[in-house]
Amino acid sequence: MTTAALKVVVIGGGFAGLWCTRALARAPVEITLIDRANHHLFQPLLYQVATAGLSAGDIAAPLRQILSAQRNASVRMGEVSALDLAQREVTLADGATLGYDFLLVASGATHAYFGHDEWAPHAPGLKTLDDALEMRRRVLLAFEHAETAASRGDERERDAWLTFAIVGGGPTGVELAGTLAEIARHTLRGEFRHIDPARARVQLIEAGPRVLASFPPELSERAAAQLRGLGVELLTAAPVQSIDGEGYLRGGERVAAKTVLWAAGVAASPLGRLLGAPLDRAGRVQVAPDLSVPGHPEVFVAGDLAAVTQPDGKPVPGVAPAAKQMGAHVARTILDRLAGRSQSAPFAYQDYGNLATIGRMAAVVDLRGFKFSGLLAWWFWLAAHVFFLIGFRNRLTVLTNWAWAYWTYQRHARVVFGGAKAPPGSNPADPRSV
Amino acid sequence: MTTAALKVVVIGGGFAGLWCTRALARAPVEITLIDRANHHLFQPLLYQVATAGLSAGDIAAPLRQILSAQRNASVRMGEVSALDLAQREVTLADGATLGYDFLLVASGATHAYFGHDEWAPHAPGLKTLDDALEMRRRVLLAFEHAETAASRGDERERDAWLTFAIVGGGPTGVELAGTLAEIARHTLRGEFRHIDPARARVQLIEAGPRVLASFPPELSERAAAQLRGLGVELLTAAPVQSIDGEGYLRGGERVAAKTVLWAAGVAASPLGRLLGAPLDRAGRVQVAPDLSVPGHPEVFVAGDLAAVTQPDGKPVPGVAPAAKQMGAHVARTILDRLAGRSQSAPFAYQDYGNLATIGRMAAVVDLRGFKFSGLLAWWFWLAAHVFFLIGFRNRLTVLTNWAWAYWTYQRHARVVFGGAKAPPGSNPADPRSV
Repeated sequence: MTTAALKVVVIGGGFAGLWCTRALARAPVEITLIDRANHHLFQPLLYQVATAGLSAGDIAAPLRQILSAQRNASVRMGEVSALDLAQREVTLADGATLGYDFLLVASGATHAYFGHDEWAPHAPGLKTLDDALEMRRRVLLAFEHAETAASRGDERERDAWLTFAIVGGGPTGVELAGTLAEIARHTLRGEFRHIDPARARVQLIEAGPRVLASFPPELSERAAAQLRGLGVELLTAAPVQSIDGEGYLRGGERVAAKTVLWAAGVAASPLGRLLGAPLDRAGRVQVAPDLSVPGHPEVFVAGDLAAVTQPDGKPVPGVAPAAKQMGAHVARTILDRLAGRSQSAPFAYQDYGNLATIGRMAAVVDLRGFKFSGLLAWWFWLAAHVFFLIGFRNRLTVLTNWAWAYWTYQRHARVVFGGAKAPPGSNPADPRSV
Repeated sequence: MTTAALKVVVIGGGFAGLWCTRALARAPVEITLIDRANHHLFQPLLYQVATAGLSAGDIAAPLRQILSAQRNASVRMGEVSALDLAQREVTLADGATLGYDFLLVASGATHAYFGHDEWAPHAPGLKTLDDALEMRRRVLLAFEHAETAASRGDERERDAWLTFAIVGGGPTGVELAGTLAEIARHTLRGEFRHIDPARARVQLIEAGPRVLASFPPELSERAAAQLRGLGVELLTAAPVQSIDGEGYLRGGERVAAKTVLWAAGVAASPLGRLLGAPLDRAGRVQVAPDLSVPGHPEVFVAGDLAAVTQPDGKPVPGVAPAAKQMGAHVARTILDRLAGRSQSAPFAYQDYGNLATIGRMAAVVDLRGFKFSGLLAWWFWLAAHVFFLIGFRNRLTVLTNWAWAYWTYQRHARVVFGGAKAPPGSNPADPRSV
């Protein structure tokens, strides 16, 4: 070992990458954290940006700001274009190369369309801030289109714009459906002259037999009851067969729904394919028990990109706590190596429970068998999420926004931009123009 | 007069259009407010969105929400494509037509490049939320580019990315320059490893002899002193001669500045040309003393689109209070007509004073001859702006954000999106790629 500090390169500023970086704060290493964005994103609340409850800045913090006091870490905004495990080098899209002694690949996952990429323009997913703002834009403009259609007496067009289909009954789909129903029934009340927003149909489509399949069946049932109470139509046990700009086909039946949101498939980051390791069906890297890449003890994968199996045979879920734990585990392994211990401990996932929110004052919580739902679960969900939100300033604003929304049913970020110059009907290239 | 309510069409949901609409709340008319965006924008604070101090939602409120309780008003999101004054009809881009008995055209102004539209891609202006988010993106990414250039030892490139030129020494230019200097010296301190953001050059270019030319000379001087105190370079008395992606030319000298922001020319909305009335050089409509279009007593123009001269020969300035007063005046004229009074009063501008902020705790205030500057002026400016910000919720958040920024020097909206997928160097089509 030379006297120069060993180099650690971390790809991805999500939970896994950031938690690994922070856990190495006192280590005699030089860390470079690479991310395509300039911010860490608190993904569990991304649906709130998509549904106009929070602003982008409320759930994102600049990576440089988070790490400014950590002198052994530097941030590089950029996109990784190649990995050379033999030379131990990472190449960026602008041609720069970074050598490493340890590498963590934590570039996460994005949404996938089960081989139907042609659905993507008609059914946006929710992984980045840009995704969330696009969803918000579509949802808010749909009501504008409906109002316009109604003003000229076109009821068919109006109803198509007032039908919202969410594909995928996992936590994200449930959150979106519950919040959309709330917006239609409460937030927009009284604001239109030709339509009644409360007549909007919000459909949640799940291919499997029940929503929130990762929860115990009784909590799925309670979630379903709470969703129905909010006015959401639950369509379970059959997948969508096709999606286009006018609606979708399911069970042979065609439904006119101008707004379809995607909360179903997930595909791992394409960087996984550059590691030469076996991948699972979703493209995740099948790592060794210590999260290293087989044959490369100096290369690790963590977070949504890693396929890890628990002792009971179940996969570690793609959730924030798992990503944080994996990131911290990789840091511990690197510290062990620095201390001369070559034997590394296997990663063991600590499952503290499972939460999902449904809408205003409705949620389900499963704390290792201790299950509850409804108002108490919602408060628990709120406290947990605000507590874990990075940065005191954001926590304060998010709480203020929620308190405001709670008392008034209003949502503070109901602003359309990135499309404000193209109002309904003005852009013939927009397949959603009326 | 028939028993059906008379129809009022208002084009533009800015200060003029919105204030006219609200002032007609109790009138027996049917008002349709048309806007391209779904929100009213508090333009005086737009520079705070551009400089990452506020989120878009903090200074924008949905027009539907503002007007939801006003039963005689409806909102139509859309773009006006034609005006037929003879038929009294407004045509929208989607083909819809709206008849009117009274029409207010209040579609405002946008930035203009003095006949040099080729500068537009290299020097974005600041009129809409999209403009502000583009400015924010460029400013934040410039520091990322500088860091990358410095990390490979390219000092020339680094310095070009660390040079920010703001063209136009009016209130917007002064606000942008002061805030940018503050960001470079304080907000970003300690966050980079290869550059010192405090070494960034912030240049304010003004063609005339002094900044804030609409203020008394002694306040211009104090503003200049405060700007210099913040580290801004003042370049007065000569205009820019050309702007491209690498910098600008001025006085025959070429300066490498990768980020140029435009705060100079203003051009009135093109809708003014559809009225058949004489226009001034900036494209504003030369209205009759009651703000009507000559020959069309039922058609009015208000706000930045109207060219109105005060008794002393000076033009009414293009500021928010003037637009509000004009909108309210048009409403009073319409009420007079409804009451059978055909004689309408001339518009008289009430000038309550002139404020401009410069940066943290620095501003200038001119209240009809009572002039002050510095800390007291800044508190006055803050109070006035927060007071006039529409919607209690926004006022609260904006105050919270300011208090936070004040104590910590941090800015809460430092998030790049709409470009987060295209980090430095990854997009060869981006002329700003390193």
